[in-house]
Amino acid sequence: MATCNQNGINLRSITSIPPIKRSIYYLTRTRTQSFRCNSSLQSTTLETEPKPVFTSVKSFAPATVANLGPGFDFLGCAVDGIGDYVSLRIDPEVQPGELSISAIEGIGNSATKLTKNPLWNCAGIAAISVMKMLGIKSVGLSLSLEKGLPLGSGMGSSAASAAAAAVAVNAIFGGKLSLSDLVLAGLDSEAKVSGYHADNIAPAIMGGFVLIRSYQPLHIMPLKFPAEKELLFVLVNPEFEAPTKKMRAVLPTEIGMKHHLWNCSQAGALVASLLQGDLNGFGVAMSSDRIVEPKRAPLIPGMEAVKAAAMEAGAFGCTISGAGPTIVAITDDEEKGKEIGYQMVEAFINDGGLKACAMVRRLDRIGARVISSIPL
Amino acid sequence: MATCNQNGINLRSITSIPPIKRSIYYLTRTRTQSFRCNSSLQSTTLETEPKPVFTSVKSFAPATVANLGPGFDFLGCAVDGIGDYVSLRIDPEVQPGELSISAIEGIGNSATKLTKNPLWNCAGIAAISVMKMLGIKSVGLSLSLEKGLPLGSGMGSSAASAAAAAVAVNAIFGGKLSLSDLVLAGLDSEAKVSGYHADNIAPAIMGGFVLIRSYQPLHIMPLKFPAEKELLFVLVNPEFEAPTKKMRAVLPTEIGMKHHLWNCSQAGALVASLLQGDLNGFGVAMSSDRIVEPKRAPLIPGMEAVKAAAMEAGAFGCTISGAGPTIVAITDDEEKGKEIGYQMVEAFINDGGLKACAMVRRLDRIGARVISSIPL
Repeated sequence: MATCNQNGINLRSITSIPPIKRSIYYLTRTRTQSFRCNSSLQSTTLETEPKPVFTSVKSFAPATVANLGPGFDFLGCAVDGIGDYVSLRIDPEVQPGELSISAIEGIGNSATKLTKNPLWNCAGIAAISVMKMLGIKSVGLSLSLEKGLPLGSGMGSSAASAAAAAVAVNAIFGGKLSLSDLVLAGLDSEAKVSGYHADNIAPAIMGGFVLIRSYQPLHIMPLKFPAEKELLFVLVNPEFEAPTKKMRAVLPTEIGMKHHLWNCSQAGALVASLLQGDLNGFGVAMSSDRIVEPKRAPLIPGMEAVKAAAMEAGAFGCTISGAGPTIVAITDDEEKGKEIGYQMVEAFINDGGLKACAMVRRLDRIGARVISSIPL
Repeated sequence: MATCNQNGINLRSITSIPPIKRSIYYLTRTRTQSFRCNSSLQSTTLETEPKPVFTSVKSFAPATVANLGPGFDFLGCAVDGIGDYVSLRIDPEVQPGELSISAIEGIGNSATKLTKNPLWNCAGIAAISVMKMLGIKSVGLSLSLEKGLPLGSGMGSSAASAAAAAVAVNAIFGGKLSLSDLVLAGLDSEAKVSGYHADNIAPAIMGGFVLIRSYQPLHIMPLKFPAEKELLFVLVNPEFEAPTKKMRAVLPTEIGMKHHLWNCSQAGALVASLLQGDLNGFGVAMSSDRIVEPKRAPLIPGMEAVKAAAMEAGAFGCTISGAGPTIVAITDDEEKGKEIGYQMVEAFINDGGLKACAMVRRLDRIGARVISSIPL
């Protein structure tokens, strides 16, 4: 078993985390910017331990919307202006090669619900993975996490913490690792806390839309929404804890051919529309899931009315964000977004008896980034 | 019942064809070039009968490859340099408003197997649909069909005939109808002879890749493969009649969630790759169907070895074309395409005991077109 103490955790102990089932680790960037694994290599491990270039850095990682209807389990995107922050500093009081989580603050019950044990904290696990990739043995780090995302909201809360931490550790040592390495570090974290899926962590780190084609080998495809087009998300988060177990339990194990073919064609249309900047097509496809949403929607009180209200108010499309309970609608106009959000909140209270808050956010095209730093 | 004679069939009798289940007919072109139905309108019917502008036209419509692995039932593309020809002329010996099929020629057993009854011939049905949309009552037409595609080959033989006929009739009267109207006319034909699916007829008429998002309403999305990129198809057609009924019967009625999600993500990756011109990604996705191909491949003797030979020879991907028995591989180089074809033919004879012929063809980006005409 791993041993850890108040001050930190030795990197060797990462091996005691149950091994993630991935046979292939190393990613290379192809001409078309998709990331594919090289089947014979592990994730990057530097030959020489890099020196730190900052005494401290502060990073931000955005919220993410996974699934997007028929993009279930393979598509996600990043949402700007809301997310988690990590402050990371070189700390002589932490044993060299170790990481300590000094503080967790933030909205809701984040601070009390999350552990400071870096082996079981999303940010901690990702940070340790990056330290291991970099081969850090001579420097101790102290990490402070500021949660901007509520836990279990369906907006990629765990991925945002992991992404911010991974980017911060990489940055403090001069940014030696690639985006794909950082995704792998984040996957270590996601695997431990919410399952081995990359549809939140990949967009949280890379920004924009990301399609996960396969896990073995891991093949991640960034999908570029046209730069000249506007895309806004209306995120409506009700005061309701989505019953995660039930959300998984209701998923069908067998799917009729007709529904399978329908969802496959919607998935294709979803991807085509976003690459072509066709918000109307994107919204129609996003709203057309016949497999997952019909099963999960009844578990979120008022969901059907909320979706209807969004469409009535002019949204291009509307579905459950991640596994819920947040509902996401899309539009291309901020004022219209506010009206859509208002109508969705009204529907939540009227039909679901749930208080909810709405926000209108742009597509984040950048992903996790350093927002301030102090040079050595 | 419809009555028809040697010379032609009155357009009114088209109504006796069993009605196609489509509630919405009329298509409009959106900003992003996708075609969507207007839910309250029928297909185009001109107010004034147009005058002919040619005494005769000759048209060509390309072969098509439908399915493309995980694009099963919703994706197809056109292949240049092989297809069907229609020669159409104004014929005073045919009753005004009627159509006669004067000749059918072509490879294999096309001429003997196909009927000259325009009500039951692919080209005839599509031609009559277009005449009906145009409201032709004053002119009789005579049509001659030249089959360049073998029947039941999995290369869109029926769609090519229908597309060439639809385009020819539209052209002879001045090209009043839109591409989407022509697709609808072609669908009339496909529905009667091979099922209500548009994944051959839409690319046969429009060229390039076409995604069918839905039928009710009909929503067709042309997907542009980048103009500067080369895409070649190696089509290997064995001397073997694919057992169509068996090909349909082996399709599973229920699909496990894991396979469903896998194929959905491959469908997304397939679409993303083709829009981005990423042939490697396209080939990987096209070869990764876990639902249909594994069931159908065993019905084509040697298929597995043929696919392995294609990949070994450097193809980006390989799968069954349509419902087979033609196998399609993709490459970006003509010489390599010939070598891939040679290896596939060898594998067909060695492992499947089947003679086969190979051809290397470019993506057709134009679709059905008039190739010659004589003005009035």
